[in-house]
Amino acid sequence: MQNDLAVSMIITAWKGQNKKLDEMIASYGDEQWRKETSPGRNTGYYLLGHLAAVNDHIIQLLGLGNRLHPELEEPFLKKPDRSGTPSQSIAELKACWKEINDFLYGRIAAMQPADWFEPHTAVSAEDFAKEPHRNKLNILISRTVHQGYHLGQLTYLK
Amino acid sequence: MQNDLAVSMIITAWKGQNKKLDEMIASYGDEQWRKETSPGRNTGYYLLGHLAAVNDHIIQLLGLGNRLHPELEEPFLKKPDRSGTPSQSIAELKACWKEINDFLYGRIAAMQPADWFEPHTAVSAEDFAKEPHRNKLNILISRTVHQGYHLGQLTYLK
Repeated sequence: MQNDLAVSMIITAWKGQNKKLDEMIASYGDEQWRKETSPGRNTGYYLLGHLAAVNDHIIQLLGLGNRLHPELEEPFLKKPDRSGTPSQSIAELKACWKEINDFLYGRIAAMQPADWFEPHTAVSAEDFAKEPHRNKLNILISRTVHQGYHLGQLTYLK
Repeated sequence: MQNDLAVSMIITAWKGQNKKLDEMIASYGDEQWRKETSPGRNTGYYLLGHLAAVNDHIIQLLGLGNRLHPELEEPFLKKPDRSGTPSQSIAELKACWKEINDFLYGRIAAMQPADWFEPHTAVSAEDFAKEPHRNKLNILISRTVHQGYHLGQLTYLK
């Protein structure tokens, strides 16, 4: 019972961070997304692609299927901002973000509390036996904090 | 068992964010703390006091005692940056941060997993009966994300 509650609290926290980005998407214009969050730092555009790519990766880490937009990995995860010219438009990144989250929300709703304590897909059985915290729930905790980190920067586009 | 694990994962996540600020404290000079994290935005100094004040408030919310530094509330929680001239020096804020966390770490280590599912001290019994997620664990989840948010800004002082 408490176990269910802890899981649902973490899912709620993660969704809360997603919702904050949804609100920025609803309110920022293209000009704002193109701006740097601080002089010489990541642009809003890059962080939007980055957060979409990170959520896309969650699909794989939770074993819910293949990523929906693996093309985001190279420009928004592997490479830093301004290292190339990503082909995605701001509108396309917003659409990816929505598609990825709609998919995740549906699949996460079907998960049972105990599922969250299973190993995520990037940990070996051996490592998991020694480090049981490397489970699916921890993916969501770390990604929630990661979103908070970049939302703190994206708020500077206001 | 899973319940204990979820609680310990959240405590670890919270401590991880504290540690990141510890690392900034160890590496940033006074000049960096005095800078704005982005033009016209919060200074490092203000955010340092703010994060110390928020952790101080956790002591009270978890029912672990009175805040150690209630004098931080007015300048770093109630008022925004540059609304006055806080009397604390950077060195004093760093000392508060350490003292508050040392206290919290000791008291949290003595808490049992089930304690985290009790209501925090700012929720009424009536509200808690309807909203059992308003517990002590949720305080730590929300404060962890909040720390992430400001750490994303403080990294711009580098």
